[in-house]
Amino acid sequence: MYTLKELSEKVKAYFEAESFMGKPEHLYEPIAYTMKQSGKRIRPTMLLAATQLFGGDVEQARFAAIGIETFHNFTLLHDDLMDRSPMRRGMPTVYRKWDENRAILSGDAMEIMALHYFLLLPHKNIQQILQTFERTGMEICEGQQYDMDFEHRDDVSISEYMEMIRLKTAVLLGGALKMGALYADASVAEQEAIYRFGIDLGLAFQLRDDYLDAWGDPKTFGKQTGTDIKDNKKTYLVLRALEKGNATQRQRLLNLFHNTPDDPTEKIAEVMQIYEALEIKKDVEHEVERYSEAALQHLASIERQEEAKKPLQDLAQTMMAREK
Amino acid sequence: MYTLKELSEKVKAYFEAESFMGKPEHLYEPIAYTMKQSGKRIRPTMLLAATQLFGGDVEQARFAAIGIETFHNFTLLHDDLMDRSPMRRGMPTVYRKWDENRAILSGDAMEIMALHYFLLLPHKNIQQILQTFERTGMEICEGQQYDMDFEHRDDVSISEYMEMIRLKTAVLLGGALKMGALYADASVAEQEAIYRFGIDLGLAFQLRDDYLDAWGDPKTFGKQTGTDIKDNKKTYLVLRALEKGNATQRQRLLNLFHNTPDDPTEKIAEVMQIYEALEIKKDVEHEVERYSEAALQHLASIERQEEAKKPLQDLAQTMMAREK
Repeated sequence: MYTLKELSEKVKAYFEAESFMGKPEHLYEPIAYTMKQSGKRIRPTMLLAATQLFGGDVEQARFAAIGIETFHNFTLLHDDLMDRSPMRRGMPTVYRKWDENRAILSGDAMEIMALHYFLLLPHKNIQQILQTFERTGMEICEGQQYDMDFEHRDDVSISEYMEMIRLKTAVLLGGALKMGALYADASVAEQEAIYRFGIDLGLAFQLRDDYLDAWGDPKTFGKQTGTDIKDNKKTYLVLRALEKGNATQRQRLLNLFHNTPDDPTEKIAEVMQIYEALEIKKDVEHEVERYSEAALQHLASIERQEEAKKPLQDLAQTMMAREK
Repeated sequence: MYTLKELSEKVKAYFEAESFMGKPEHLYEPIAYTMKQSGKRIRPTMLLAATQLFGGDVEQARFAAIGIETFHNFTLLHDDLMDRSPMRRGMPTVYRKWDENRAILSGDAMEIMALHYFLLLPHKNIQQILQTFERTGMEICEGQQYDMDFEHRDDVSISEYMEMIRLKTAVLLGGALKMGALYADASVAEQEAIYRFGIDLGLAFQLRDDYLDAWGDPKTFGKQTGTDIKDNKKTYLVLRALEKGNATQRQRLLNLFHNTPDDPTEKIAEVMQIYEALEIKKDVEHEVERYSEAALQHLASIERQEEAKKPLQDLAQTMMAREK
């Protein structure tokens, strides 16, 4: 039985063994640049942990682990282009390091390359594994479109927001886990339980991200707080404040979220004041707690060795305790 | 046994039966807009014709036919964005009708949606079918990158050009045919022969496209001739002229292909004069003929009923006789 640390090291070794290069170099350079960056590799680790949990052979799923990360990195690469984000993991994003066309095309290639990895080793459940993969992929695109749509809307409800982050973030965790379960030939009920663990964990993870943008310690958070406010991003925080606030506060928030001053210091301070007055911090902490609890209950409901659940429990804890 | 016309009508009916819509509408609108345009549907027709040729059940492959066209349309959608092409099939391209982000994201969704269609009906060869699909998809991305790279190079050889159009255009015809063969459980030798038929037909088809840009009848060609010259596109014609021409002609061509005058009339006329002087028309006609012949020989080498080959022979003829 592998510990979380051992699984993470396995994943790390898999990525080190792959070159991700090919010809023409202009196509593969941005792919290797992206794939070789040392992200946290949460999704491949989850996939392998789920395979192990249900008694499968982790080595059988190793290329699927690379495939799921390839797909995840493709979504980040294209999202960065669509959102015009200049930096990712402390490095210039692909469209800025090279250009837009190379970002479009290398992302396109990574999207199909993910399928390449899934197909490297035959598996009797390949049909279901790939159906889970394509359903997840479509949902991520849907989530990204909702996210972009919300930028132009002032009437986004919290339930719409939760559905958006379910699609944009949570389904890939759920999908990775379900695929891992399929490699181990887990029962349908088990596939469902581990998927739900991933969904609730993903929702908690994204709400925690919203929380950290406002109340994270800039020293450990790794980036400036208040970025979501500066960028007028519709997060749980502002949506909850719009829901709870009186007419004056609501109007003020809406005005603030339509401005993009050169120096956002005052704007951030004023929004934070409204958040404090409405006790938004307590609300988001409560929601993070609620979804984390729900996630762990799904994991607890699975009747497998406790020792085999440990890596996923530890991973959930790491993800929720993170300050960045 | 279905004729080419009957197969084409089947394909048309499949596309009419699909809505391609979903939520969020902003994501699916450009997809339905693209998929509902009445292109020639060459690739899905080829896939079904190959299934029939090798004695398979055409209905079993019907979703794969939709899948291959979905992938093809994704590549056109993103290529139009990368090449800044304003029109396609007489309609505004997606990035111009909506915007760049919707073009990126709807294309991304179509790329994964293709996989969705391939997975709709289980098939015992699904592993090989999808491996053919992903290999083809990667190669198309490689071809598009070579095409973009060639814009900035003056030393492209004809063999490099042939390799580029093999990747960018021909492999999707070969891939569609091979996938069709796999649905019919054809032998490896048969898969290979039908793939080569597609490759050589694809090369002939692209060279014919190069030819039509220079010598097509604008009335039947459907678009202005000389567009490739105006856009400084490296086609077989100019590469052959650079190979055959003397130092003066070569230098003049290189200069002309570095200019983009507001009114390209004189530039086109001068390039055409060089083509005439060097008898490029005869050369490209010869190459089209050579690849068409090679394609038909691969088809002839397959030991199946002649009647079953007829739709592919007819399709090849239609493709090569086309004036647009």
